Amino acid sequence: MKILGVDPGLAEIGYGVIEKDGNSLSQIEFGLISTSSEKSDLERLNVVFEELTQIIKSLEPEQMAVEELFFNKNAKTAIRVGQARGVILLAGSRADIPVFEYTPLEVKQAVVGHGRAEKMQVQQMVKTLLGLAEIPASEDAADALAVSICHCHTESTRNSWSEML
Amino acid sequence: MKILGVDPGLAEIGYGVIEKDGNSLSQIEFGLISTSSEKSDLERLNVVFEELTQIIKSLEPEQMAVEELFFNKNAKTAIRVGQARGVILLAGSRADIPVFEYTPLEVKQAVVGHGRAEKMQVQQMVKTLLGLAEIPASEDAADALAVSICHCHTESTRNSWSEML
Repeated sequence: MKILGVDPGLAEIGYGVIEKDGNSLSQIEFGLISTSSEKSDLERLNVVFEELTQIIKSLEPEQMAVEELFFNKNAKTAIRVGQARGVILLAGSRADIPVFEYTPLEVKQAVVGHGRAEKMQVQQMVKTLLGLAEIPASEDAADALAVSICHCHTESTRNSWSEML
Repeated sequence: MKILGVDPGLAEIGYGVIEKDGNSLSQIEFGLISTSSEKSDLERLNVVFEELTQIIKSLEPEQMAVEELFFNKNAKTAIRVGQARGVILLAGSRADIPVFEYTPLEVKQAVVGHGRAEKMQVQQMVKTLLGLAEIPASEDAADALAVSICHCHTESTRNSWSEML
């Protein structure tokens, strides 16, 4: 099964598609959607929607997992990044693939085993679990792969639970 | 020219379409898009996108004006309403109509003449300017009409400026 993971944002949106075959995970493609700060937010939202829709069309993931945003302060930034995340969720939904959401804590727990993991540990585990030659250069793309791994692990647990019931 | 004004939100989204003919304004239709809190945010975003797209298709506004969000605190709420606003902006953009944005302050200034206006004053001016029999029952729909009036007034000023240059 192919999973698309997305690390949401307005300037840089990480994406990563992985293939799950039994217990084995491998990467299909990962990268960044970037939007220029010289464009209006409206134009940037359109770029995000169009490029993500294009990625879904060409890589054909069967499910999509999107990390939740976490902001303590700055409501103004929260609104702008929230707008981009709304468009990201819609892109998956309009492409008719089921969309799942995970908090940063859930991603860390699923990938490293505990929620206090450092960014570097998450990136290292992404490299190991997917058998990559090196850690992805883009932190956002690594995060997106982590979200897709989180979804695979969560799905497995869910399936083994349902087999046990 | 037909203008669609939108007061963004997740639970209740006000919309109002008005017609501008020279200096005269009249209402075409106004109302609410409501989404149930029993649905997931993802489902609600889809309802907002689909219903707004439908409204644009059937009423055929030539321009769209969307109020900006204003939050001082609660970044969590800001993210959720931001997501809905992102989808609202995208709906206009995907329908190929120019989208304009106005702050609550700009709306009050354009409709009442100063930025410290009370909600009730704005609603009263909406009723007067559009020649409505009474104030719209929904505050969000009245706000949406106010945004569309704000856009008409701003457009007029812009045009008279360009004529003067």
